Amino acid sequence: MTTTETLSVREMGLRARRAARVLRSLPTDRKAAALHAVARELRAREAGILAANARDVAAAQAAGLPAPMVARLRLDAPALAAIARDVEAVAALPDPVGETTPERTLPSGIRVSQRRVPLGVLGVIYESRPNVTVDVAALALMSGNAVILRGGKETVSSNAALEEAIRAGLASEGVPAEAVQVIRDPARERMLELLRLDDLVDAIIPRGGAGLHRYCVENATVPVIVGGIGVVHIYLDESFTRDPADVERAARLVHNAKVQKPSACNALDTLLIHRGALPALPALARDLMAAGVTLRADPPALATLRSAGLDAEPASEADYGTEFLSLTASIRTVPGLDEALDFIAAHGNHTDVILTRDPAQAERFVADVDSAAVMVNASPRFNDGGQLGLGAEVAISTQKLHARGPMGLRELTTTKWVVVGDGQVRA
Amino acid sequence: MTTTETLSVREMGLRARRAARVLRSLPTDRKAAALHAVARELRAREAGILAANARDVAAAQAAGLPAPMVARLRLDAPALAAIARDVEAVAALPDPVGETTPERTLPSGIRVSQRRVPLGVLGVIYESRPNVTVDVAALALMSGNAVILRGGKETVSSNAALEEAIRAGLASEGVPAEAVQVIRDPARERMLELLRLDDLVDAIIPRGGAGLHRYCVENATVPVIVGGIGVVHIYLDESFTRDPADVERAARLVHNAKVQKPSACNALDTLLIHRGALPALPALARDLMAAGVTLRADPPALATLRSAGLDAEPASEADYGTEFLSLTASIRTVPGLDEALDFIAAHGNHTDVILTRDPAQAERFVADVDSAAVMVNASPRFNDGGQLGLGAEVAISTQKLHARGPMGLRELTTTKWVVVGDGQVRA
Repeated sequence: MTTTETLSVREMGLRARRAARVLRSLPTDRKAAALHAVARELRAREAGILAANARDVAAAQAAGLPAPMVARLRLDAPALAAIARDVEAVAALPDPVGETTPERTLPSGIRVSQRRVPLGVLGVIYESRPNVTVDVAALALMSGNAVILRGGKETVSSNAALEEAIRAGLASEGVPAEAVQVIRDPARERMLELLRLDDLVDAIIPRGGAGLHRYCVENATVPVIVGGIGVVHIYLDESFTRDPADVERAARLVHNAKVQKPSACNALDTLLIHRGALPALPALARDLMAAGVTLRADPPALATLRSAGLDAEPASEADYGTEFLSLTASIRTVPGLDEALDFIAAHGNHTDVILTRDPAQAERFVADVDSAAVMVNASPRFNDGGQLGLGAEVAISTQKLHARGPMGLRELTTTKWVVVGDGQVRA
Repeated sequence: MTTTETLSVREMGLRARRAARVLRSLPTDRKAAALHAVARELRAREAGILAANARDVAAAQAAGLPAPMVARLRLDAPALAAIARDVEAVAALPDPVGETTPERTLPSGIRVSQRRVPLGVLGVIYESRPNVTVDVAALALMSGNAVILRGGKETVSSNAALEEAIRAGLASEGVPAEAVQVIRDPARERMLELLRLDDLVDAIIPRGGAGLHRYCVENATVPVIVGGIGVVHIYLDESFTRDPADVERAARLVHNAKVQKPSACNALDTLLIHRGALPALPALARDLMAAGVTLRADPPALATLRSAGLDAEPASEADYGTEFLSLTASIRTVPGLDEALDFIAAHGNHTDVILTRDPAQAERFVADVDSAAVMVNASPRFNDGGQLGLGAEVAISTQKLHARGPMGLRELTTTKWVVVGDGQVRA
């Protein structure tokens, strides 16, 4: 088996293109079999993979990386077993490749349809979680794509061991190992080469913080799918606070939105509250504060909280339109739905929720808000591939082109026009 | 009515965003009414528009522009009338905005669907044809998008007059005139500002030559939809030359592919010919040469042509994978389908055609060729929005993301997730 260790990024691109030509015609059952073989290899190589990971962890600790970062890159036996199970779950997903729109016969006599095909070659750039290496490879393969992966420099050993397991699995099923290649050289120049390989790579998917996304957008000539970055709002209308059971529901939902996974892109950033709903705010705030959330509130909300004996910080303008990714949230009081919609138009794009008992308000909110996901009376944490029924996701797109929201197998495909005639020419 | 003459590109972007928020909720009939008003204004202002165009033509002639370029920018009364009719035709197209996927209830109890919505704000950059100004504005409006247009410096007066007509039409129907704005300053810096306005513009669509597309890809931070660039192949199999009627069909089709509009992106560039089909080549070549086509052939094809008394030029490697956009085509002899497929895998991406009577070959060709359009026994000139049943097109995408092939109204939209619950939180 070849190793990618010493290849130039361009040579990796050429190999990926050749592999992609094989992958795009591979039947579903062969792709699934290859993924099962990958899962077997991951299990069989557990000791080697965990040893490689232990080297990364030791190096990270020696370099003084903060404990949460070290935690993110650490693998153990249960985590590796979960990764292998996830690969098998991807193998069971419906294959979008080959779906064809109904054929139409046009006035010229030609018969036309659109057939779903893989994108081709993906470049995925991510940070320190080694599970991404396997997750992304599995989704790329099942959708018939070759992939070039560029992980964080903190996980070079783990990723090399995982790449070898993946490629051994593929090779054992007769699938080109070049379908999955990891750039092992952590130098930024190699990433830049990948970002500019537009004659060989069809899409770049960054997974990481805003800085990584911005770097890709600024430097890539390959199209980039930007995702995961954005502010999450919940607008609490007065109508959702009249019934004490609703106040309880709202408190539970806001708590879920902020506390369940504060580092997630679909966690709450800003609570917009109808001024008539302010009496319910202390009940919501108590739950959040008990979980360690810092609240930054505008004057009416601050006054309401303080008069209930709760302490919050005064919000500055910088606390709005800001993605916190931590146990902090801002609160803004609005006189009504119009102002909430204006606020979201200025700051939103990711996930925005209205809590209301007024169906007309709900419909206006859904119609006006232009975000990847718009929700009525549900937690923004549902903006996730698994939660929305996609089975798995490679990223959450917050841009408009190609895919918006969670990207599963279908979002890793495109279409081609198929035209069948009998010698027709254009008039 | 405001004029965009003195606005910065950023200010135009902010106004476009505000207009887009209105446009995205506009019912179909109001968009159609606005387009009819635009058509009326174009007709009412005929004299002024043609006078403005005459100024552009005079300036172009004074500057010594080549006659074909001057011809491209010239408008006359019938051309303007046709443009107005095209606007009315767009108003009659089905509106994709608001289409919703069937709602599904997921295990968590939330109900989810995807609703089709406009992209938002488009930036369209094009060269000297003033009809593009109106065509693109009409498609953008009907799909609920605001658009910022940047035409060629040779058509500044024409575009200003057309913009005024469009905006007057919109305003008369109560649609924000800022939905259509033309960058009047022809300085390249203004185009660069548009390309980097990624917080306000959702997509850049270049319409023009390879140089313009490359400039956009290299410089934009807004996502770019690359289109129209690419090589068109026809593979003539031996099975399509056994029957003299088929040879005649092939000759007619190849002639249509190359001669009907040589400057079009879907015109033939390279004829791949099965060596067993060489005896049919002179019949094809005679028709092409009679139309003034220069053929550049590889040695077997050249020998066949010369022994039939036809003169062709020897092809160099540079004649393959080259988009001619003129009355030149290259010919390459291949031993069979495998080699044709390898050749197309190396050079194709736009439109590729097989002429064959063998259904198994046709299916292999359709499965293996990864281009925007793959055709069996039909002219590549059918790769066009009107010809494929889209009604109209804003561009032909040759990239994989978002849209592939002709882009009509639907391709100017995206989707958003709509989630409706009753207080559900994520487990």
